[in-house]
Amino acid sequence: MRGAVLYGPRDIRFEEREAPKIVAPTDAIIRIAVTCVCGSDLWPYRGLQPIQGPTPMGHEYCGIVEEVGSAVKSVKPGQFVIGSFATSDNTCPHCHYGYQSSCVQREFISRAQAPVLRVPQADGTLVPTPGVPPDEMLPSLLTTSDVLGTGWFAADAANVKPGSTVAVVGDGAVGLLGVLSAKQMGAERIIAMSRHDKRQKLAREFGATDIVTERGDEGVARIMDLTNGIGADSVLECVGTQESMMQAIHAARPGGYVGYVGVPHEVELNGEALFFEHVHLHGGPAPVRKYLPKLIDLVWSGKINPGRVFDLTLPLDQVADGYRAMDERRAIKALLRP
Amino acid sequence: MRGAVLYGPRDIRFEEREAPKIVAPTDAIIRIAVTCVCGSDLWPYRGLQPIQGPTPMGHEYCGIVEEVGSAVKSVKPGQFVIGSFATSDNTCPHCHYGYQSSCVQREFISRAQAPVLRVPQADGTLVPTPGVPPDEMLPSLLTTSDVLGTGWFAADAANVKPGSTVAVVGDGAVGLLGVLSAKQMGAERIIAMSRHDKRQKLAREFGATDIVTERGDEGVARIMDLTNGIGADSVLECVGTQESMMQAIHAARPGGYVGYVGVPHEVELNGEALFFEHVHLHGGPAPVRKYLPKLIDLVWSGKINPGRVFDLTLPLDQVADGYRAMDERRAIKALLRP
Repeated sequence: MRGAVLYGPRDIRFEEREAPKIVAPTDAIIRIAVTCVCGSDLWPYRGLQPIQGPTPMGHEYCGIVEEVGSAVKSVKPGQFVIGSFATSDNTCPHCHYGYQSSCVQREFISRAQAPVLRVPQADGTLVPTPGVPPDEMLPSLLTTSDVLGTGWFAADAANVKPGSTVAVVGDGAVGLLGVLSAKQMGAERIIAMSRHDKRQKLAREFGATDIVTERGDEGVARIMDLTNGIGADSVLECVGTQESMMQAIHAARPGGYVGYVGVPHEVELNGEALFFEHVHLHGGPAPVRKYLPKLIDLVWSGKINPGRVFDLTLPLDQVADGYRAMDERRAIKALLRP
Repeated sequence: MRGAVLYGPRDIRFEEREAPKIVAPTDAIIRIAVTCVCGSDLWPYRGLQPIQGPTPMGHEYCGIVEEVGSAVKSVKPGQFVIGSFATSDNTCPHCHYGYQSSCVQREFISRAQAPVLRVPQADGTLVPTPGVPPDEMLPSLLTTSDVLGTGWFAADAANVKPGSTVAVVGDGAVGLLGVLSAKQMGAERIIAMSRHDKRQKLAREFGATDIVTERGDEGVARIMDLTNGIGADSVLECVGTQESMMQAIHAARPGGYVGYVGVPHEVELNGEALFFEHVHLHGGPAPVRKYLPKLIDLVWSGKINPGRVFDLTLPLDQVADGYRAMDERRAIKALLRP
């Protein structure tokens, strides 16, 4: 079996790896239908996040169960399933509170850019679809595994409600699906921050009512203009830099909410400044498992089409081209077919 | 008129100042019944917060209206009133959202350790009591002006609900009244962190079910023990140091809430660490004005007795002794009578 392995900055290889096998009785082995490159994969790809030697990549996946361990009860071979990038037993206290991505048995999936994948805690991690989906539905279903689930969590953490005024920082796939999520949650006004024509267009298609092309302080000033000087009720932070985080915090009104899902890199928040901003701050790794049934249903019933974020489709063995296209912002998100 | 003025570290003087007068038509002049020293007054008193020359002090107050400006409609001379430490017009969008302490017309009161005080935005800042209160009710009524309102906001920001497990970091008057607030909101378990005998006793009287004497990592470990390794649903941060803030964040379960009201001093939060803690964070200057009617009612009806935090009563001209006793932690909070 061959899969994607990161060797160092911009050095991703598609090479022979041992095929995964059942290790624990709670494991499942899945034949991947489609996988993809995540915005968060770009941090180590760009050398901005250290790796310990050659690192197998990929954490977004869906496909057919091939084999299950002896303890697995809720999924069986032949079923089409989708799982979160973070495994969960879905029974521990943190899972019960809806924070499956902080499950006491959490592991982060990291070998999904491959034709076959081992998923630990299969019962608590995987959700079967109502049947084997048609090929054209695969991109949208795949998004529920991380990028849509993460955009959804951003909107949920930012307390988006019917009638809310929302701002979205970041026009990557997560930000764009944050727009879609806010729209689904009934937001009245959705301000997308983007200076990229194609992404602006998709943001509008997903429900953005306004586009702000300015960044930093100018971007914040523009959002203040658009909200009569009040600020947004909810801001989705979907990047993870110091600039984007401060932009999000400053764009929220006092008492407003910032949902942050971009993994922060070298971000420091000054306590006193945050205090006087008066915002609610919540974020972290999205509890995708919590949202999977609902999101699968929205896709299955044709109510949403989040797969539109994939503007590049490649055979899995050209995974390196997918990384390159996203790194250079030529592609929003690259779908990979084994 | 004489009032308290801070000249430098541990140099507080009670000296002649000009008596306040109506400046704007929205002002009121109040004859102070009782005032007090706030934990936050200790930061500049200790030289840990710079001051620009001699600084009049005091921001907790209640008393009888003596005079109002021509535009004031909702309070009149002779009424007993209580106001927030932050003025508000109570009509701007931030006020409407319940964040009166971020009112567009906000000013911070800072001359209340005196017999007479000018309060700007009187209509939006002051709340009259049902009548002139008996003398023994004054301490409890005074707490609604800041220290109780702030403890209440800590519990509210930390999402305390009936049945919640709550931890309170800080055994100053705000922390102790955070315990009382959590109890009022129906918390089932309230863990107070204190190593001070008298404060532990008052915490228990206010509703604490458990006392943790350990601090830092050991204190967090103790809270984990007490919550079966899960962490608290709600943590009230009532200090404002790096250590107390991290203690609060670590003591909350993933998905739990940290309400922080201790004005942060040299606190820096690492974005990535916060991300993986998975907590909700909210705080800032308490919107006391929002809570005043409810808190006055709770005191007036005898349901709560927050004035118990005052364990030292001094004539106003001995204000310096009040600061000293609190600085040395001999007193929890000093009441001052003009």
